[in-house]
Amino acid sequence: MIKSLKKAADSKYFQGFILFVIIFNAVIMGIETIRGLSEGAVSALALINNICLWIFIIEMIVKLLAYGTDYFKDPWNWFDMVIIAVSLLSGLAFMSAFRAVRVFRVVKSLKALRGTKLIGSVKHLQVIIAAIIKSIPSIMWTAILLMLIYYIFALIGVNLFGEQFYDWFGTIGKAMYTLFQVMTLESWSMGISRPVMEVYPYAWAYFVPFVLLSSFIIMNVVVGIVVNAISEVTEDNKAEEEKVTETDLIMEIRALKEHLDRLEKSLPAKEK
Amino acid sequence: MIKSLKKAADSKYFQGFILFVIIFNAVIMGIETIRGLSEGAVSALALINNICLWIFIIEMIVKLLAYGTDYFKDPWNWFDMVIIAVSLLSGLAFMSAFRAVRVFRVVKSLKALRGTKLIGSVKHLQVIIAAIIKSIPSIMWTAILLMLIYYIFALIGVNLFGEQFYDWFGTIGKAMYTLFQVMTLESWSMGISRPVMEVYPYAWAYFVPFVLLSSFIIMNVVVGIVVNAISEVTEDNKAEEEKVTETDLIMEIRALKEHLDRLEKSLPAKEK
Amino acid sequence: MIKSLKKAADSKYFQGFILFVIIFNAVIMGIETIRGLSEGAVSALALINNICLWIFIIEMIVKLLAYGTDYFKDPWNWFDMVIIAVSLLSGLAFMSAFRAVRVFRVVKSLKALRGTKLIGSVKHLQVIIAAIIKSIPSIMWTAILLMLIYYIFALIGVNLFGEQFYDWFGTIGKAMYTLFQVMTLESWSMGISRPVMEVYPYAWAYFVPFVLLSSFIIMNVVVGIVVNAISEVTEDNKAEEEKVTETDLIMEIRALKEHLDRLEKSLPAKEK
Amino acid sequence: MIKSLKKAADSKYFQGFILFVIIFNAVIMGIETIRGLSEGAVSALALINNICLWIFIIEMIVKLLAYGTDYFKDPWNWFDMVIIAVSLLSGLAFMSAFRAVRVFRVVKSLKALRGTKLIGSVKHLQVIIAAIIKSIPSIMWTAILLMLIYYIFALIGVNLFGEQFYDWFGTIGKAMYTLFQVMTLESWSMGISRPVMEVYPYAWAYFVPFVLLSSFIIMNVVVGIVVNAISEVTEDNKAEEEKVTETDLIMEIRALKEHLDRLEKSLPAKEK
Repeated sequence: MIKSLKKAADSKYFQGFILFVIIFNAVIMGIETIRGLSEGAVSALALINNICLWIFIIEMIVKLLAYGTDYFKDPWNWFDMVIIAVSLLSGLAFMSAFRAVRVFRVVKSLKALRGTKLIGSVKHLQVIIAAIIKSIPSIMWTAILLMLIYYIFALIGVNLFGEQFYDWFGTIGKAMYTLFQVMTLESWSMGISRPVMEVYPYAWAYFVPFVLLSSFIIMNVVVGIVVNAISEVTEDNKAEEEKVTETDLIMEIRALKEHLDRLEKSLPAKEK
Repeated sequence: MIKSLKKAADSKYFQGFILFVIIFNAVIMGIETIRGLSEGAVSALALINNICLWIFIIEMIVKLLAYGTDYFKDPWNWFDMVIIAVSLLSGLAFMSAFRAVRVFRVVKSLKALRGTKLIGSVKHLQVIIAAIIKSIPSIMWTAILLMLIYYIFALIGVNLFGEQFYDWFGTIGKAMYTLFQVMTLESWSMGISRPVMEVYPYAWAYFVPFVLLSSFIIMNVVVGIVVNAISEVTEDNKAEEEKVTETDLIMEIRALKEHLDRLEKSLPAKEK
Repeated sequence: MIKSLKKAADSKYFQGFILFVIIFNAVIMGIETIRGLSEGAVSALALINNICLWIFIIEMIVKLLAYGTDYFKDPWNWFDMVIIAVSLLSGLAFMSAFRAVRVFRVVKSLKALRGTKLIGSVKHLQVIIAAIIKSIPSIMWTAILLMLIYYIFALIGVNLFGEQFYDWFGTIGKAMYTLFQVMTLESWSMGISRPVMEVYPYAWAYFVPFVLLSSFIIMNVVVGIVVNAISEVTEDNKAEEEKVTETDLIMEIRALKEHLDRLEKSLPAKEK
Repeated sequence: MIKSLKKAADSKYFQGFILFVIIFNAVIMGIETIRGLSEGAVSALALINNICLWIFIIEMIVKLLAYGTDYFKDPWNWFDMVIIAVSLLSGLAFMSAFRAVRVFRVVKSLKALRGTKLIGSVKHLQVIIAAIIKSIPSIMWTAILLMLIYYIFALIGVNLFGEQFYDWFGTIGKAMYTLFQVMTLESWSMGISRPVMEVYPYAWAYFVPFVLLSSFIIMNVVVGIVVNAISEVTEDNKAEEEKVTETDLIMEIRALKEHLDRLEKSLPAKEK
């Protein structure tokens, strides 16, 4: 019985149905945000929402029965359980603040998409996701490098401008948020730097180097990492398709050499 | 007669004439936008506009006669027919709202450009267009991934900030437009995030991750896709020009081996 | 005498001296912009400016004598003559509006830099300039494609929003400037699109597709063209340095085959 | 004794301890920025800060004893000494303005990270840093090219708009800061160009070409340089790992040819 349950849980139809419920649930959650719905509509939507939740609970139980302890090895399943737990608890009055967490059910669609093998057939999405995963470690290191630059500039910023511009540089946290805004180049000059320069005329010596460092150097490194990852993943895909590689070439040449060796050995033996 | 019509319709001169009419029509439509034209000028421009329209109608009839049912196989021709139909109908009073559609006649220039073989002679534009076409499927998938992120953040945004900031997060639609603006980094901090943070001090935990996800990760993926497509198209063009490839190399080595085989076979037969 | 003049005009010292005069002249023009200079300082700076101009005139005469009619073949020299002519004429009262043109003398430094062979010794700048020159035709075609998109959106914009937002969409010219601003993503939403949406609620259907088309597709194509050009120029430089190419490989294999041929021919002749 | 000192100074534990002190010191400097601390807390933090400083001084002395004159060969050590000197002097009343320099102690963490060999084990960070170092000369040349464009546009800007818009184009310095802001596309149109165009309607002919040149051409060159550097560094790393290269191929073919030569020589000698 467990075997047939497993087969059912892995089947394209089951996964497709779950994907449909997720998308349907997402639409319902969208409709729920409309202001001024009638009492009846609100309770109908809440009912549908609950039905969707129960479908997800049944899905979890089916999988638990089908896979047993293997179920807990997939991080996606942990994600599922947390979503279901929070959804159930948020029904209680004192947990209503956590209702927003329910929207993460939409992320389940990615997992379900994989389950239906719809992704498997689409090379392009695989390349994108593989490239993103490949760039994560490099981007993490860039982020650490960036945090170092942020922290130094935030410390300087708080010391220099903290008193006069409390909203922007009052604390380390405020300064880091402001520096993030400056890095995205949003209103960095008209909104932040020029007002600061009216009090501290040399403030440009703080902002311009930061923009150059963070936005032009570090941000381009992120571009480079992602571009490089995409080009590598694409090349790897191609390399697998190509039949003739340099390793093949060297194999051919070695075979030739052995051939010649054999020939050479056979000759002198006869002619000596 | 159909044959000579076809020849005429395909000829460089006919296509060049149509291209000229399109550009001339585009200029006329530009002049029409000038405010405060005299009565006479307005009616003269309308007349020229109508003449251009009739030339396009004649072009359509010529092509219909020349190609017969093949005419309907080219999507460009459907585009032509829709433009002509809307242009004709917009002459009627109750259709004047659709007059703006006429400007899409300008897009016909791209098709006419192809017809005149002007594009064919210019490698650079071909590379650009081939690269754009090549990146469309990957960009579509990136857009789907982005829509998922948008929808989740829009749902959270409406639930958290919808009441207080109706203009920005009042409905799913408003929230998605706001998130699009945030993704382009336009006034995201001074215009949206800082005002929201005055009411909800922890709103940065909503905006900063969204900016990181959408603008720095996903947008760079789009850069990577386009850069990769251009480099691939350029390499493909080069590869065709290059005469020596690794496949040629392996062919040469195999010929050499056969040579050696033949030599080896001829020798022992004599010497045994 | 012409020969020695030519030698002098081509010498590193002459070109270095001209480069020094250009930079010195640039600094003087910078000092001239300072407000509230004394009468004496202004006339001293004007005098130095005139001396620099005369040095450039002498340089032109020397080159004219040295090269004769060849002088007119280099576009840089035409640029020189125009700068000198405008500088001379701007001394006259009614031409003072053209005084600003003098600052283009600074561009001469690029030419002089080339003359001093200072650039020749620096591979990195050559790569950058070669890449920029290489990307010009592709960028031109991208610009033409962009102009088509601009023109269509400008026509629609003038027709739809021209009446209500005269400053932004009053004429084709104003609309194209506004669209350029939107393409750079500067205040496109808070400054342009949101005010327009207050009058025309569906204006987002005009702005969002334009941003997607112009800023995300076309701008990334420009990134791709430049990145590709730089990577190609770098690879070309490398390829020249590398000694072993696939063409070399095939030459080696062919030599081997001829070797074998000769061997084969020599054997049967003896053993038959 | 010097030998064991050297060993201690180079040991992972010593470097790890210094890294810990740097991070701890960074956190303390962060806490110091909090406003409204009690007298006691402030003096406690100052004490801890001083202890950290003394640990750095002891580190310097240990290294000086261990390495002797070699100590002065590493630029990082000069950086250390300057930081320590400024930190010591800023304790004196009249030097308090230099207190901010202390935050650069955080940069020491990069050096300490290298010392602990933590970086050595992480390929990704090495690739990023190698790519940044590799792109520095090219970026420097791009910066020089950019400065030329800046200076010409600043001179024109001061001459044209200096009188009316003193805050933006009053001096060469102000104009260059404004142009830097325009290059980052921050409020360039709504904030700078449109107000200027109200006085000088043709100002767009100044701003649009500058945006095209600086932001679209030059900035993309920087992207290209960094992307190229990252892809080169990655390829170099790969090339070292790959065992079969074209140079190996040519070696194999040459060995084959020698083989054949030997064979040929041995044959005719016997058969003639």
